[in-house]
Formats: sequence, C-alpha cells, structure tokens
Amino acid sequence: MTAIKTNSGNYFEDFKLGLVMRHATPRTVTHGDASLYMALYGPRFAVQSSTAFAKAIGYSDAPLDDMLVFHVVFGKTVPDISLNAIANLGYADCRFIKPVFPGDTLSAVSEVIGVKENSNGETGTVYVRSTGRNQHGDEVLSYVRWVMVRKRDKASPPPAPVVPELPGRVSPNMLGSAVPTVGRAKYDTALAGSRYLWDDYAVGEKIDHVDAMTLEEAEHQMAARLYQNTAKVHFNQHTEGKGRFGRRLVYGGVVISLARALSFNGLANAFHLAAINGGRHVAPCFAGDTLYAWSEVLEKSEIEGRTDIGALRTRLVAVKNQDCAAFPYKTPAGEYADGVVLDLDLWLVLPR
Amino acid sequence: MTAIKTNSGNYFEDFKLGLVMRHATPRTVTHGDASLYMALYGPRFAVQSSTAFAKAIGYSDAPLDDMLVFHVVFGKTVPDISLNAIANLGYADCRFIKPVFPGDTLSAVSEVIGVKENSNGETGTVYVRSTGRNQHGDEVLSYVRWVMVRKRDKASPPPAPVVPELPGRVSPNMLGSAVPTVGRAKYDTALAGSRYLWDDYAVGEKIDHVDAMTLEEAEHQMAARLYQNTAKVHFNQHTEGKGRFGRRLVYGGVVISLARALSFNGLANAFHLAAINGGRHVAPCFAGDTLYAWSEVLEKSEIEGRTDIGALRTRLVAVKNQDCAAFPYKTPAGEYADGVVLDLDLWLVLPR
Amino acid sequence: MTAIKTNSGNYFEDFKLGLVMRHATPRTVTHGDASLYMALYGPRFAVQSSTAFAKAIGYSDAPLDDMLVFHVVFGKTVPDISLNAIANLGYADCRFIKPVFPGDTLSAVSEVIGVKENSNGETGTVYVRSTGRNQHGDEVLSYVRWVMVRKRDKASPPPAPVVPELPGRVSPNMLGSAVPTVGRAKYDTALAGSRYLWDDYAVGEKIDHVDAMTLEEAEHQMAARLYQNTAKVHFNQHTEGKGRFGRRLVYGGVVISLARALSFNGLANAFHLAAINGGRHVAPCFAGDTLYAWSEVLEKSEIEGRTDIGALRTRLVAVKNQDCAAFPYKTPAGEYADGVVLDLDLWLVLPR
Repeated sequence: MTAIKTNSGNYFEDFKLGLVMRHATPRTVTHGDASLYMALYGPRFAVQSSTAFAKAIGYSDAPLDDMLVFHVVFGKTVPDISLNAIANLGYADCRFIKPVFPGDTLSAVSEVIGVKENSNGETGTVYVRSTGRNQHGDEVLSYVRWVMVRKRDKASPPPAPVVPELPGRVSPNMLGSAVPTVGRAKYDTALAGSRYLWDDYAVGEKIDHVDAMTLEEAEHQMAARLYQNTAKVHFNQHTEGKGRFGRRLVYGGVVISLARALSFNGLANAFHLAAINGGRHVAPCFAGDTLYAWSEVLEKSEIEGRTDIGALRTRLVAVKNQDCAAFPYKTPAGEYADGVVLDLDLWLVLPR
Repeated sequence: MTAIKTNSGNYFEDFKLGLVMRHATPRTVTHGDASLYMALYGPRFAVQSSTAFAKAIGYSDAPLDDMLVFHVVFGKTVPDISLNAIANLGYADCRFIKPVFPGDTLSAVSEVIGVKENSNGETGTVYVRSTGRNQHGDEVLSYVRWVMVRKRDKASPPPAPVVPELPGRVSPNMLGSAVPTVGRAKYDTALAGSRYLWDDYAVGEKIDHVDAMTLEEAEHQMAARLYQNTAKVHFNQHTEGKGRFGRRLVYGGVVISLARALSFNGLANAFHLAAINGGRHVAPCFAGDTLYAWSEVLEKSEIEGRTDIGALRTRLVAVKNQDCAAFPYKTPAGEYADGVVLDLDLWLVLPR
Repeated sequence: MTAIKTNSGNYFEDFKLGLVMRHATPRTVTHGDASLYMALYGPRFAVQSSTAFAKAIGYSDAPLDDMLVFHVVFGKTVPDISLNAIANLGYADCRFIKPVFPGDTLSAVSEVIGVKENSNGETGTVYVRSTGRNQHGDEVLSYVRWVMVRKRDKASPPPAPVVPELPGRVSPNMLGSAVPTVGRAKYDTALAGSRYLWDDYAVGEKIDHVDAMTLEEAEHQMAARLYQNTAKVHFNQHTEGKGRFGRRLVYGGVVISLARALSFNGLANAFHLAAINGGRHVAPCFAGDTLYAWSEVLEKSEIEGRTDIGALRTRLVAVKNQDCAAFPYKTPAGEYADGVVLDLDLWLVLPR
C-alpha cells in the first residue's frame, strides 16, 4: 500500500517544543505582486508607489509593501501550523527588519517556542516564532503568533506547559533597520501627499481615516491565493455555506491591509510599518462588509542613532458598516463595540 | 490642539485662477499594471500586447496602453480636484504626447485655468489643465477637464468669471508624437488582427464592435484602486446603498477602457489613442450592466510630415444592456437614446 | 461602400484541409501574468513560484506555469477557429515542449488537419493542430483540438472527409524536453512541499486533493481576458442570461487550472505538466460552483536518457459541489457521475 500523500496538517501533539519547520513554497515576489497589492487595497504611500521617489530618498528601489511581505511569509506557515487550528489567538513582537524588493525570493521557517494544553484535554495553544528570509538568507520579518490547535488524540499526555515571555511592545531602538538614512531634503511632502511629519503628531491624537472599502468575494479570494494561503474557510462556499457563518470568511490579513491603506488619509508620511506589537481580529468579515478605519497615537519615540526618522506607536482600529467619526472602540464595560473588527498596536516610521 | 490631518478636499473658493497643484502620489507603472489592465479589459492591440511586435515597427519596448496612462494621471488629480465635485462636466484637448513604458514613473500637476460661479451661489465650475509627466520631466499626457464643485461658504464673493477657450478638436498636426516612424514593411497585419489600415476607412463609416462585457463590482473596484483613484462613490456600498442609485458607481474610465478594448473588433490597427477631443459620460454604469460599443468615422486626416501613419477621428459610443446593431445614439429630439452611457470624440492613429 | 471590418469568424466551409492560419495577437508574457495566474488559481509548485528554487535545480529562471502558456496560445486561436463553434469536442497530443519565461513573446499558428461534415448537413467537425512559438520561433506548445463548427450555407457541398490519426497518449520519450537536467541534490523536498517523488507513486493509486475553490464571475472573466480569449459566452450576461444556462459560462481552461492547482496537495513534486493526452469538459461550470479534484495514477514511465526525472500518467478529475473522498467518476452504466466536470489524461514530470 502506498503512503497517504495529502497534507492533513499538524495536531497539537506534533508541536514539540523546539521543533523547527522549514515551510514550502519559496516565492519570488515581483512587480506583478506589487500591482495586484495596489489593485486589491489601493495604498498610496509614495515610497512603495514610486521607484523615483524611493531612490530620491535613499532606497535602491521601491520596496514592496510591508504587509505584502507579511502575507507571503504568513501564507507559507498555514499548511504546517494552522491547518487544524480552531483560532488564531494573537500576534506579538512582529518586526519588519529589511526591505524586500521585486525579484527577491521569500522563504519561511517557524520554531515552536511554547505549548500549553487546555484543561478540556481536546486542544492546546501553540506558540511559534516565524521568520521570513530573502534569497541571501537575511531575516526580513520575524513574529510570534499563537494558535489554538486540536489534539489528534484526547488520550495523549499533555506536554510540560511552556509559555514564552513576549514584549508588550517592540523596543523603539529595534525599529527602522528597513529604512535607509532618509535624505530629508529630498523627501517631497507634496508628492507624498501630506505636510505632517513625525513632529506634527501628538500622543492621544485620534484620526478618522474617513474613506471606506466594501469587500468582494473575488477580491479576498484573489488576495489569499496570491499569498498561497490555503486556509479552506476563505475559498470553499460549498462547506462554509453549511457552516457557522454560512459564508466564506475573509482572510484577516485582507482587513489589515485595507485598514493600513485607508490610514494613508491622515498618515500619508507613515510609509513604513516597522512593527506589529500586538493585534486581534475582533470579529469576522465577509464579502459585502464595508470597512472604515481610525487611528490613535499611543506613543512617540525617537530611534537611537536616527535623526532622519521617528517612530509613532498607533492603535489602528477597523470597523465595519459604520463610519469612524465617533472613533468606535470599546463599551464602558470594556468590551469591543459593535462593528469593531480589528484592533492593532503598531509602530510606524515617519520622516522627521 | 493638533491640526486635522485628513484631506477633506478643496472647495470652489480654493481654486484661484493660476493656482498650480503638484499632486500626490508619484507612481511607477510596470508589467504588473499592464497585465492587470489586460485582465480587466481584454485589449488586443498588438503594439501594447507584444514587445516583439512593438520593437519590430520601431518602438524601444511595448508601450503601456494609452488609457492606463490616462487613468493613473487622472487618479492623482482626484484628491485635489474632484473630492467635493458634484459632477465631472467634460474633457477637452486631451493629448497623448509620449509613449510610457514599464518602469516609467508618472506624476501629475494641474493648473486652474478657469472659474465661474453658478447663479445659485452654492457651486461653481472649475477648469483645470492637468499634465502627466514621466521621471525625466517629459510631458506624456495633457488634458483639460471641468468639474462642478461645491462652495465652502455660500456667502463668499464670486471670483471674476474666466472660461478658457478650448479647441473643438485637437489639430491633426499635434498627433502622432507618441508613435515612432512605423516600419510599415515590418507591420504584420496578420499578427495585428486585421488587414484594414488607415486608407481603408471612410468618413461616415459605422462599425458595430459586436462583442460585449458585463461589469462586476470586484473588477471596477480593482481598476479604480490600481489607478489610486479615491472617489468614494466607487468603493463604499455602506453609504452608496443609501444614496441616489443604491449602488456603487463604476468609475467612468472603466467604461472608456472597456469600449476602447471592444473597438479592437473593427479597428484592430488603431493601436494608438492620440487624443480625446471631447467626451461625456451620458449615464452611470453599475455592476451587472453589459457594455457594447460602436464607432463612427467622423474625419480622416494626414499628419504633417508623416507618411507612415494617419489619423482617424471617430465617435466611440458605449451602450449598456443593448447591442449596437442599430447604432443607438440620439433620439430625433436630439437627446441621448436609452442605454447610451458614453459619447467620446477621439483621434486614433493607424498605419497607412 | 466600405468593407465590413468586424471579424465574424470562420465557418465550416472556410476550413480547407491544409489551411494555415497565423493568429493575432502576439503576446509578451511577464511577471505580471505570473502574479495574476497565482491570484486566480493559487498554485504552489516551487519551480514556478521561486526563481531561486528554479535556478538551483538548473533552470535559467522560474518558468511560467504550463497552463498559462496553454491558455495564451489557446486564446489566440479562438477568433479564427471557435468563434462559430457549437462545441469544443476534444484535445489530443498536447505537448509542452520548451519552458516559457517572463519576457518571452508567444504567437500561434494553426493548420487544418481534418474535416468531416456531419450528416445533418448543417455542421461539421474541424481538426486543427495549433502550435505556440516564442520570439525565437521555437515551438513551446503543440496540440490538436477538434471542434464542431456551423456551416455558412447548408447547400455547400461536403468536403472529402479526413479524420487524422491521433495517439492515444503521447509517447513518454517525447516528454521532458522543457525540463533541464534536474540537479537532484539541489532539489529540496521540504521547500517543494512533499517528500514523495516519482518512485513513491504506484499505478492505481488514487489521491483526493481535499482542498476546494469556489468560482466567482470577476475571477473567470479576468482570467479569460488575460488570455485574450474572446468567446462571448464568458463575458456577456445580457445575452447569456436569456440563453440555455441563464448565466455566463466559465472558460474550461479556468477549471483545468484550478484542478491542477488543487492537485498540489498530493502531487507537490509534479511541477511540470508535460502533456495532455486527451481531455473532456464533461459539464459546464458557473460562478458559485465549488470545485474539488482528485487524481489516479494510470501509468508510470521512465523517460529515455533521463535518470533525473520520471513521468506519471494521471487522470485528473474535477468535481463540482461535492467532495472527492469517494473519487466520483462514472456510473456503473459508464456515464459520468453527477458533479463530474472535467476528465483529463495527463503526463506529469517529477524528480526521481
């Protein structure tokens, strides 16, 4: 008899502490991906949009959008990590370390850094650090995520619980390595779309990004396939139609990318997403939902050794089917308000 | 208190005669954009489709579709010019001056060349000349459009009215600068898809382009985002659903590009759109509408100093949910017939 | 009076035995097309996905997906061959001869190799061999297809019937010319996504590819336009809505590409589609249908002179709105089971 050759994914028992997984499939990212990224979300940050602008301020070429890099690396981890996941519980310590340019080839490796069985004996939480590298072996992205995964066999004994210590936020001095020394004199704020630079933002400031985007099935499916993300819930109406929501689920990364693109209106010079300190998909999104977004400045920080750029820590909130003039977030009881779908804690980099 | 950082667009009072606006965001156009343009509209003109064909007749590379260049330049002008526009009233003197190739970076500048307050004191007409340039500063596209814009304050005094004089049609001798001297011996009409060249068309000839395309939400949204066009009406079902049409409005440029792509069937050698003499979006289009198109030859002209190419002035009419066998256009009373959505006056360039 | 310039396609009488048609429009395929192909189907084969992986095993660059090449060549033949076709009857002897890389320009030529009028005197079967070539004139793809075409005039006399002899399957020794000598030591099975190579598969083995994809109108329209396929049934809801199915028909090639992409899960190392021995679109597909797929190994063969790669002949079956755990295929009476939409006989190439 021949071996079963179809990947059925890993179960909780398979995630031994220290296990290292080299994920398939390496992926060369190109101008074609950059164009699709633009068609799917509509970002307008000048550095990623224009080779001429990027070169003028010190890049060797226009880098790809940071979230495109995230999605491609994330997509590779799905078949090994989250095929049998019940829930994507969280992200932490996500750092964009080096710029990625058209022509670069991305690959991904994950290491199990924590495991903890749940008291029901049926599931457990797995913590992995995933690292994306370019064709030279340089780290371009690194992040921790934790997922709840089914056990294969309820009777198997629980592993010794290990929960990794994770930073509440990335240290500001670890930011900015993906940004060359910005020739400020060459940074043309008219072309970039706003005169407001790092110095112009204040802690506590809230920005309604005003614009909105309605999601379509064809769009989120094309996005997830572009990232070679194979999670079945995004693609199979035949089974999802009979499932909990009756519909295909939009990949959470699509929501992040749309919110980030919308944030241009109010944060036009925040061209680099340097870190995701933490984040949560508060509620699912479906085709037909209209997404709005708003930001709040949580913290401002200089970056050691850099006088050209500064870091802005923001909360990026996406809301569906409701505008953000009132900055919807949480109820007095501390629960997320109706309509809130995404709550991200970010470090953005802006010229000073 | 910090400044409001979200762009709320310009109002009628902001458009002072002579005002020059350098628009955000510069945009490098690539093979990725060319592929998306093909996927969205299905053009088949050989010069834009094949590097080998383009080089054989004298181009340095396959140029991008003229309308792709138009959309990218137009998209940049939206946040500054038409965010508070009530209506896009017209186009004139639109000339495609230089070819644009993958890798070129486009930027746009507009100058206010006319202003005229309406008698209601609430709105006014603004005339702008918008110019698209490549990374070398060369003009690649120039056109005039006029829009009706809201006043910020009804009480503000009207400006001295200035209405620019605009040509009824672009002079034929200004056409063709974007086309190299075409090596006619190398122009392979079998590969181009038709044996009919400039000499074969007659004034008064009408051509039913036969084919048709049904519009989808995902398609027109991806198109408009690809051009970084931020007009809210194309993207926000949450508000548009409660609006006048109950639906998102398809960007008019999508209709132009589809009609132009359909016109291949009957005008296969008209590979270059040299000018838009004038045009009007007669009625709105929505997802689910099926577009047909027909053309009429209005004028034929030689181009001074060029024996390789000639110019054909055509009316390009797009019609929805109705075929064009009967060339639907206007009623005996001079009104547009039901179903007509687009009426464009073009200069096309063909080999002789 | 001027000539009718719109292509109305060829009728049965136009297809004289030996007639050679050079099809419009040549098409340069690029990274943009590769990205769209990925967004539309989600393939994960490492060779096409990663320049670094492809180069490591001996390619000069990452080749384009074989089916993308097929679709582009096929699309060119539509206006000349199948515009008046009633049915696409079959394929045979389809060989992928040379790899195609981004930047190559594809053109297509077809020769009529068989004609046979049907007894009703209204239609006939036309057999053509279509050949795709790159810009150097090298054959990259060659296949035979036969279609049922309407006669222009029922009274025209039938031609002498000629039915070409076609191989039941491509000889294994004609396979593999598109694959360089694979440096097996450099072929990284972890990156490729599976440890199962040619030697691990057995004749009779069936593989349920498990995953599934739901079709959307915008997706299949974008796909068909990307291939410049002009068959009206894919694009015109206005007429198709009144037709036999009440809906637009999904281009059969979309179904093939989706099934092939789904087959990665179980055949991850079958990176090259070397030949289509025969195939049939068993039933039409529409937007909203969810596609599943399964494969059966029909034959294993070495390839003369190649110790690096071997050939696997498989049946690839696509099924709609039904999973493939039970390998749905034919009824005891020999008819296709409900839900089966595609039955292809393929030669795949895998490393040994």
